[in-house]
Amino acid sequence: MSHLGIDAGGTSTRAVVLDSGGRCLGHGRSGSGNPISAGPAVAATSMRDAVEQALASAGLPGSAVSSTSVAMAGGSRVAEDDEVAAALRGALVTAGVSAALTVEPDLLALYFSGAHEPSGYALVAGTGAAAVRVVEGEVVATSDGLGWLLGDDGSGFWIGREVVRAVSGDLDGRAPGTALTSLLLEAVPRAAPSTVAALAPGDVQPPELRHLVRELYAAPPVHLARFAPLAFAAVATVDDAVAADIIARAGHALSNTLAATLLPDLDGPVVLGGSVLVHQGALADRVRASLESAGRSMSIRVVTDGLVGAAVLALRRSGVAVDAATFATVTDSLARLR
Amino acid sequence: MSHLGIDAGGTSTRAVVLDSGGRCLGHGRSGSGNPISAGPAVAATSMRDAVEQALASAGLPGSAVSSTSVAMAGGSRVAEDDEVAAALRGALVTAGVSAALTVEPDLLALYFSGAHEPSGYALVAGTGAAAVRVVEGEVVATSDGLGWLLGDDGSGFWIGREVVRAVSGDLDGRAPGTALTSLLLEAVPRAAPSTVAALAPGDVQPPELRHLVRELYAAPPVHLARFAPLAFAAVATVDDAVAADIIARAGHALSNTLAATLLPDLDGPVVLGGSVLVHQGALADRVRASLESAGRSMSIRVVTDGLVGAAVLALRRSGVAVDAATFATVTDSLARLR
Repeated sequence: MSHLGIDAGGTSTRAVVLDSGGRCLGHGRSGSGNPISAGPAVAATSMRDAVEQALASAGLPGSAVSSTSVAMAGGSRVAEDDEVAAALRGALVTAGVSAALTVEPDLLALYFSGAHEPSGYALVAGTGAAAVRVVEGEVVATSDGLGWLLGDDGSGFWIGREVVRAVSGDLDGRAPGTALTSLLLEAVPRAAPSTVAALAPGDVQPPELRHLVRELYAAPPVHLARFAPLAFAAVATVDDAVAADIIARAGHALSNTLAATLLPDLDGPVVLGGSVLVHQGALADRVRASLESAGRSMSIRVVTDGLVGAAVLALRRSGVAVDAATFATVTDSLARLR
Repeated sequence: MSHLGIDAGGTSTRAVVLDSGGRCLGHGRSGSGNPISAGPAVAATSMRDAVEQALASAGLPGSAVSSTSVAMAGGSRVAEDDEVAAALRGALVTAGVSAALTVEPDLLALYFSGAHEPSGYALVAGTGAAAVRVVEGEVVATSDGLGWLLGDDGSGFWIGREVVRAVSGDLDGRAPGTALTSLLLEAVPRAAPSTVAALAPGDVQPPELRHLVRELYAAPPVHLARFAPLAFAAVATVDDAVAADIIARAGHALSNTLAATLLPDLDGPVVLGGSVLVHQGALADRVRASLESAGRSMSIRVVTDGLVGAAVLALRRSGVAVDAATFATVTDSLARLR
C-alpha cells in the first residue's frame, strides 16, 4: 500500500510517494498549484506533473496509491468549488491515481512537517501571515491569515508595504531619512529614459518619488512583499533605525498572531514556516524571545515547506499512527530523495 | 469680459461664470469630472453639462467667456494625455466656449477657495490626503498625496482601513474588543442567506469574519474610505478607546503631512478641505491643536470644495488682482447662487 502526499503552494507543487512505514519512495516537483491564484487548470497541470514524477521515480503505477492528501491554502473549502474539485480529481486520474483525495489546510501540513505530536501550533509568514492551533491532528483555531488588506500583520507584504511607505515619507520630507530609500530605488528598475515623462511646469514632487508611484501602482499590491528583504538588509548592513523599527513591529505582530492561538496548558511544539520566517532569522528570534518572555517553554522548529506534513497527513488519514520513529523515517527518507 | 471656473472632482463637477469684478452670474453642477477615475469621455460630458448650466443661468453665450480655469487632481499633468486634453477641449467647444483653458491642481483651487492671500497652505483629507505650500499663487511644494498604497496617511481610506483591521483583530482574538465591530457588521450588508456558504468541516473562523473577508475583498481597496465615519461615531457615542486611538493617529499623520510644507517665515493662512476634515470637526481640531502646540499662530479656514478657488484662478490667470474685497464678492455672490 502506497500513499501520496502533495504540497500545492503558490510558487511550486511538490509530491511524494511513500509506503505505510513512512519510507519515501519517489518525489516530484512542478509549478504553482494554487487554484485560486493560478487558476484550476494550471494548478491541475502542476499537480499531475508532480505526481507523475513522484510515481516514476518510485517506479510505481498510480494504482498502487491507496490514499492521497493534498495541502493547499484554504484547505477543504477550496475544493467546494466544483470546477476546482473536478480539475484536481482529473489531474490525479490522468496520473493513474484513483484513490480518495483529501484536501488539507496548508498550515496543518506545515505543522506536521515539523511535528509528530498530534497537538501544537504553527506560525507562517511568507507573503501573508497566519497561525493555527492543532489539537489531535486537526486545526481547531486560526489567527489572522486575512490577506493583505484586512490582516497579514508582520508578513512579507506587511514589511514590504512599511518599507515603501517609509521611503515615500523620506522622499517628501514627512519622515526621517533611511537607508531603505537607496535600496528601494536600486530595486525598482527605471524605465528607459525616453519613456519617463518630462518635468511638467508645476511638478514639485521629487522625480524619484514620481518614479516609485508610477512603478509600484502598476503591479498588484501583494508584489510589495518582494521588498521585505530590504528591511533586513538595511539593518544588517548599516543598522538603519527606520528598518529596525519595521522589523521590531513585524516581530511584535507575528508574536501577537501566534499568542492568540496559545492555550495555557498546551505547550507546543511551535512550527515556524514561510519565506520570511525561514530566511530572516532575526524575525524568528523575535518570536522565540516573545514566547520566552511570556514564560512559555516550547520546542520551536523551522520548516521550509509542507511536504513532510502532506506525507504525514496521507498516512494519518489511512489510519497509520505516525509516532516519532515513523516521523523520522519520513523526514530522513525524503531528505535523501530531494 | 466673463470668466469660467470649473472644479472637476471625483464625485461632482461644478462650474461658475463670473465677471471681472468677481460677481458670479451663473452656476452649474453635474457628475464626476475626474478623467482618471471616470475616464475622459465621462469627465468631458460632466464638464460640458456643468458649463452649459452655468452659462444658461447667467444668460450668456459661451463666446462671452474670455478665460477658463479647470481644477482637477493631477493638475496640468493630467491634460498632457492627448486623449484627455482633446476631450476637455471638445467639451468646452460644444458648450460654445473657445477661450484658452488652464488646468490647475485641485489643491491650488482648494487653497484659493479659502484665501485671497497669494501665499499659504492647504491640507485636504477626503479619500486621500495631501498638503501643499502655495507661494505667489503657485504650488511650490507638496507633501503626501501618494495614494492609498504608498501614502494618504490620515485620509478617509487610511482611517477606514484601520477600522476594518481593528475589527478583524477583535473578531479573531488578536486585538482588544471595540464598538467598531458591531458598527462595521451593520454597515456591510449581508448577502441573502442562500448565497452564504455553509460552515465547512474544519472552518474555525467566526462566520462574521468570513463574511467581512468575502465582502471587503470584493470591492476596490479605496472603498474602505466609506468606513471612516464609523471611527468618529464610535468615539461620539460610546467613547470607544480603539476608535479614539485611530483618530488620534490620523490627526497626528495629517498634522505631520501639513508640517512638511510649513516654512518658518510663512504664517498661513491654512485652508482645510476634503470630506473627512469638513465633516469630522474632531480631526480638524487636532490639526489646529498641533499647529498651536508648535507655536504657529495661523488663520485656519475650512472650505467644502474648490469652486471659489477655480473662479479666483480664472480671474488671476486673466490678470485680475484678487484682493480681499474681490474675494468677498466672489464668495458672497456664489453663495447666493448655490
